[in-house]
Amino acid sequence: MAKKKKNAVRYAGVDIGGTKLYAVITTGKGKVLGKARCKTGGKGFKKVMSLVQGLVLEACGAADVDPARLEAVGLGAPSPVLPDGTAVRAPNLGWKMVPLTARLQSSLDLPVYAINDCNAGTLGEHIFGAGKNAKALVGLFMGTGLGGGVVLDGRLITGANHQAAELGHAIIVKDGRRCGCGNRGCVEAYASKTGMGRRITHEVLCEGRQTLLTELCGGHHYGNIRSGLLRKAYEAGDELTLETLHEAADYLGQGIGSLITLLGPDMVVLGGGVLEALGQALLPRVKAAARSVTFPASSFSDTRIRLAALGDDAVALGAVAWAIQQAST
Amino acid sequence: MAKKKKNAVRYAGVDIGGTKLYAVITTGKGKVLGKARCKTGGKGFKKVMSLVQGLVLEACGAADVDPARLEAVGLGAPSPVLPDGTAVRAPNLGWKMVPLTARLQSSLDLPVYAINDCNAGTLGEHIFGAGKNAKALVGLFMGTGLGGGVVLDGRLITGANHQAAELGHAIIVKDGRRCGCGNRGCVEAYASKTGMGRRITHEVLCEGRQTLLTELCGGHHYGNIRSGLLRKAYEAGDELTLETLHEAADYLGQGIGSLITLLGPDMVVLGGGVLEALGQALLPRVKAAARSVTFPASSFSDTRIRLAALGDDAVALGAVAWAIQQAST
Repeated sequence: MAKKKKNAVRYAGVDIGGTKLYAVITTGKGKVLGKARCKTGGKGFKKVMSLVQGLVLEACGAADVDPARLEAVGLGAPSPVLPDGTAVRAPNLGWKMVPLTARLQSSLDLPVYAINDCNAGTLGEHIFGAGKNAKALVGLFMGTGLGGGVVLDGRLITGANHQAAELGHAIIVKDGRRCGCGNRGCVEAYASKTGMGRRITHEVLCEGRQTLLTELCGGHHYGNIRSGLLRKAYEAGDELTLETLHEAADYLGQGIGSLITLLGPDMVVLGGGVLEALGQALLPRVKAAARSVTFPASSFSDTRIRLAALGDDAVALGAVAWAIQQAST
Repeated sequence: MAKKKKNAVRYAGVDIGGTKLYAVITTGKGKVLGKARCKTGGKGFKKVMSLVQGLVLEACGAADVDPARLEAVGLGAPSPVLPDGTAVRAPNLGWKMVPLTARLQSSLDLPVYAINDCNAGTLGEHIFGAGKNAKALVGLFMGTGLGGGVVLDGRLITGANHQAAELGHAIIVKDGRRCGCGNRGCVEAYASKTGMGRRITHEVLCEGRQTLLTELCGGHHYGNIRSGLLRKAYEAGDELTLETLHEAADYLGQGIGSLITLLGPDMVVLGGGVLEALGQALLPRVKAAARSVTFPASSFSDTRIRLAALGDDAVALGAVAWAIQQAST
């Protein structure tokens, strides 16, 4: 440690996703020096962690950084993560109670810290992105699902159970649309690709409506549609796409309104695939919906709602931020 | 300070309510040594603060404590309170941006700290009551309205705007029942005396239903009914009372479920007049409703839901706890 120059401090951050793995090498200020990515490929836990290790080394190569000189590695995973690095459950990966950090820590001989991916994204935006200087920050990421995180006074809220901040699963519609989690009326049931896909499927197959999406998807695969295609249909003025995205924006805004009432954030940052593709178009609608349901006395105007800045790097950079925070405590 | 014996440290806590003022003198461990109370009486800010001052002195008399030996005074008020002691708005008292602490501080020549009453109640239960040792505590108080607070790692969440934790005004029913705050579908619109009163009024006056409450209230004043009368009607098996209280319990439980999903508390403490009177009867129903909507993966069983322990003392003792916390920082 003592021999290193301060400007030589380097970190690795890895975004462990259901479909892809993505690693970055950064400075302590979150400047990305090198990247590497590959497909997750539906492999088991041990194989995926071998891929993660290889990816960190590959990213080090791209950054021209000696892996032995890394300070720490941060992992963002689609699962609640316990303080000992255990991933509780990652449905997209088929994992349950797996030791996310232990193996990598011994094979890389480096400190490894892990965190939930949407918590990572929120922390990343707080430290390096659009949420800098927020005293109370809410992050929401709308993609296949709707995940989020809350940073208060620089620290993530994880709850007594280390599984809190499941912002997409607050219930905003009593007995509403069925959500993938099994409950009804969660924000995610409306404001996510999965939720929108259910609505579109219903409208097309049960109500006989037409949509450009059928052609763009090459069939009735509306639940897993790429955000870029949603934008294409939106920009073409496709009626069902407009309706569905506007509804999603309205519900997302409603969820945000209640979060403002509960948590009093000075900033809400919105990211994830759908909002990266369509954020500028949807943001005014999201804001209006949030304003309409925020507790009137809570001075809604004190809360800025803005788009995320880190794009695809949010989770990996957030994992770096988490590693920096954890290594310093 | 140096001359005092440790066991002689005393605090005053005052619950400033719309209808009554209540002061306690306590030890540093929250043991109540003396009390005093009087009616608020719809007087203006300055007159009420004179009453508060008199009440603190009267409680000191009852406790046989020299007012000059108090360490600090805590105030709980039905308003958001800024860090400088300004009460932002207290609709029940007709106050807006009044300097809650400044005048009392100079007239008593003591440090005075103020806090929102439901935040105080939550902190009081955390430090002295049913929420001891909770790492993440949610408090909910169901009376005329539905207020609450959140304590994480021993500290109240107040948000960047110092006005957060308006737990009664999270929206759980889209386009639902009108709430006193102006929005629709807030938890408070169902789970409060005001909300229940609206339902009962509607059922009696618009639907022609009968209820024992009409006799107990001596008219159609269902919005301001005393909790003891609600219990009487409940225990007599009055159908409309049962329906309404069960509905309130269900909605309260739903609100709690989403709070567990969002904040991951290890404990939820329930107080306020209605739950003091009917908590044992309603608690199983509240728990069942909460369980039914909590994010399934969040291990609902890690959260204990229990009744508050401090009763009428919660706000005054919480104000003491706040004064102790603030005086030590």
